[in-house]
Amino acid sequence: MDDLLYVQVASHVEALIAAGTLRSGDRLPSVRRFAREREVSIATVLAAYRSLEERALIETRPKSGHFVCQAAVRPVATRPQRIAALAPTRVTVSDVVSTLVRSMSDPRVVPLGAAQLAPELYPIRTLNRLLGGILREMSSAGASYEPPPGLLTLRRQLAKRSLTWGMSASEDDFLVTSGAMEALHLALRATTRPGDSIAVSTPIYFGILQLLEELGLRVVEIPSHPEHGMDLSALEQALKKLNIKACIAIPSFDNPSGALMPTAARAQLAALIERHDVPLIEDDIYGDLAWDHSRPSPVKAHDRSGLVLHVGSFSKTLAAGYRVGWIMPGRYAERVARLKFSHSVATSTLEQMAVAEYLSLGGYDRHLRKLRTRLTQQVRAFREAIAASFPVGTTVSDPRGGYLLWVTLPREVDAMQLQAAAAKRGIVFAPGPVFAAGQRYKHHLRLNCGFPWSEKIASALRTLGELAIQQASDHRRAC
Amino acid sequence: MDDLLYVQVASHVEALIAAGTLRSGDRLPSVRRFAREREVSIATVLAAYRSLEERALIETRPKSGHFVCQAAVRPVATRPQRIAALAPTRVTVSDVVSTLVRSMSDPRVVPLGAAQLAPELYPIRTLNRLLGGILREMSSAGASYEPPPGLLTLRRQLAKRSLTWGMSASEDDFLVTSGAMEALHLALRATTRPGDSIAVSTPIYFGILQLLEELGLRVVEIPSHPEHGMDLSALEQALKKLNIKACIAIPSFDNPSGALMPTAARAQLAALIERHDVPLIEDDIYGDLAWDHSRPSPVKAHDRSGLVLHVGSFSKTLAAGYRVGWIMPGRYAERVARLKFSHSVATSTLEQMAVAEYLSLGGYDRHLRKLRTRLTQQVRAFREAIAASFPVGTTVSDPRGGYLLWVTLPREVDAMQLQAAAAKRGIVFAPGPVFAAGQRYKHHLRLNCGFPWSEKIASALRTLGELAIQQASDHRRAC
Repeated sequence: MDDLLYVQVASHVEALIAAGTLRSGDRLPSVRRFAREREVSIATVLAAYRSLEERALIETRPKSGHFVCQAAVRPVATRPQRIAALAPTRVTVSDVVSTLVRSMSDPRVVPLGAAQLAPELYPIRTLNRLLGGILREMSSAGASYEPPPGLLTLRRQLAKRSLTWGMSASEDDFLVTSGAMEALHLALRATTRPGDSIAVSTPIYFGILQLLEELGLRVVEIPSHPEHGMDLSALEQALKKLNIKACIAIPSFDNPSGALMPTAARAQLAALIERHDVPLIEDDIYGDLAWDHSRPSPVKAHDRSGLVLHVGSFSKTLAAGYRVGWIMPGRYAERVARLKFSHSVATSTLEQMAVAEYLSLGGYDRHLRKLRTRLTQQVRAFREAIAASFPVGTTVSDPRGGYLLWVTLPREVDAMQLQAAAAKRGIVFAPGPVFAAGQRYKHHLRLNCGFPWSEKIASALRTLGELAIQQASDHRRAC
Repeated sequence: MDDLLYVQVASHVEALIAAGTLRSGDRLPSVRRFAREREVSIATVLAAYRSLEERALIETRPKSGHFVCQAAVRPVATRPQRIAALAPTRVTVSDVVSTLVRSMSDPRVVPLGAAQLAPELYPIRTLNRLLGGILREMSSAGASYEPPPGLLTLRRQLAKRSLTWGMSASEDDFLVTSGAMEALHLALRATTRPGDSIAVSTPIYFGILQLLEELGLRVVEIPSHPEHGMDLSALEQALKKLNIKACIAIPSFDNPSGALMPTAARAQLAALIERHDVPLIEDDIYGDLAWDHSRPSPVKAHDRSGLVLHVGSFSKTLAAGYRVGWIMPGRYAERVARLKFSHSVATSTLEQMAVAEYLSLGGYDRHLRKLRTRLTQQVRAFREAIAASFPVGTTVSDPRGGYLLWVTLPREVDAMQLQAAAAKRGIVFAPGPVFAAGQRYKHHLRLNCGFPWSEKIASALRTLGELAIQQASDHRRAC
């Protein structure tokens, strides 16, 4: 059986469902007939149907055949995302991203767009007080470059933190970066060349797609399970059939889907990339934000060959404007250090000192516990508001960490049109199409729940719901 | 006459001089004979001889012909650098750079390598005190991202500063970066694609060559006059004959040569790139360090078409570890902003605030006056020490700003061997070969004079001189 083929067959069926050609309750062609019509083997069709079933798109009724599932009617529920094609595509991320970026510093906008926390959720007063103390004690701090790999005291603290990740890295394993984005950039530059094909879990954070586009890389989209993340069998097929030069995934509290890759799958993933000798860039930026306080152990913890480049940051936990991130580049350490120097020479010294001091004082875990509890509450409030005011047929992700929600609207609602209408009312969110290379996720949106629940946010969500309902009914009238 | 050809002919003669085939006082072949032997026109040979004469490599003796000049015997004098070939070459910068980078944070090393100022030359106490005040007043400063184009108050101050540069930019013309290196990177990414040919003044700062290498760009080396910088007629030829996608130059106090491009040439350069519709990346990082306090007006001040991308930083004047630089990207503004976001999202907020505050208080010009005077004295002390202890035949640049010296040793001394010997004694400098794509500048070195004169530095220079003399005499014995 050609394993790539079954993914294509499944994609085809999914496209028919998405386009409304196949509707809820419709019977699918029999396996035998489908195999004949598509000129594939019965085993391939069976595998395709099984994969669609696993993702709750279709169901088997004993002795009746395969049927398209009922659309989810529960407004708050996890729904599978659509599977992506297993062929390299050129990336194109739209100008929507520019709108999102501009909105980040506009206090008039309801901040549902960029993935950011409210300033009051950071321990920023403590950090700034510590920095003030450092400035008084070491009045010439910050004068000199702190060249790669970055401040030793910070790297020592990172090495200590790695024990809480289920691993034991040394200070020499880390290189400090200006946030996770610079770390991802260095990782891609260290492992790829323009024109290379990169396996990417889909949907994925638009900043990564933008980076891939700018580096002239080709994307092989690996479908992501809404709860468990990257589909490892699809990744394996891609690694076998295509000349993949690197993989990217966000195994913990994926952006945008919120998926959390199970521990066993992490070990499998590490073994898989080792078998194929292909580096994995692991974006672990949300790893510290597990709501049940069980910090997931990164794939890097299973890495025996130095092929995993682990990327993290304090932007989601301590201070976004501090721009302190890191990379554990494994076997690419020398190249990454050289690239860091020619990209930006060094990371700002002062913030490295303040974060190192903060970590050394031991308040970070206490802060994380408080933050996670806050985020759980915030995200719950968002989900309830969506359930109350979004159109029937809406589904929403059910993450166990981070502060992002991935919403699937009824297919009559176009996320881009909705965004345009919402922007006029001072509401910004991230529309689905920016999370994939192709024109997918047209009726999806990502909401940032990083700001405390407020009447302003409640009202913005009600407005969004009304706009979506309006759009859906306009669409039905037009048909 | 083929203008490219005359440059090649001149290069050929220069190579013969460099290799010792033609020696001081030797007579060159007659123009007629040379033309016949090389199968070029008489006009070409005349042009080549004229260009060699202009650069004091050869001299015309009436009715006798052309002769190789006497080697400079004055130990402290400006000497022309060797001309570079006008053909694109792949860049390869050696591992020497890694040694330099590592030495930056090693307090045991005599810091003659990386281009850095001593911490005590920065107004770092004042900056840090201002930052301390900001942290007390705005206790949540630094919590949030400050997305491109960066902090408004800083951009306003930059716009005000631009008046002292002989131009009048607006706050919207600037985008804040993590130092000049990130700005250069953004500029190259905005204007070129891998495989493109870039015209680069030669010799040039190794960090730029490293960046070009990593971006897969090809270098067309444009010879640089030791006093006036980039040779504009050579650049014009390159623009006419080759498919040049961008140019890079350091018109003010070039790194490493110290050259200062005259005002008229700046206007010419702006007109030239406009005529050919090719962007110019202007690295103006040393622009504020004119010893006579006459801040050179950048090429950007002559830019009417938005083709000049002006790059600067406070790393050489206020604080290297603050990582605050900027770019005026001209017509590439939108693309640069997008790239900045995907490179590193944002520049650290706190340092932007502190620099903006510092500039708004008006002490910057006073600081610059003091700093320039200090640098004049330091560089003079270096030059005198070189005159006193380096081998006869050594020449050294005579800059009018910045804090770098470009030293040409007698051709028996190999800079790489000298570096290896010096490193064993805890002395680091930048050897000539890292400043060009090919294996040139073998007996050149760049010295950082950014640290106040001290017995330690005096002793290091004496040691360097002794090592060079030793090497030269070993070399002569071996021959």
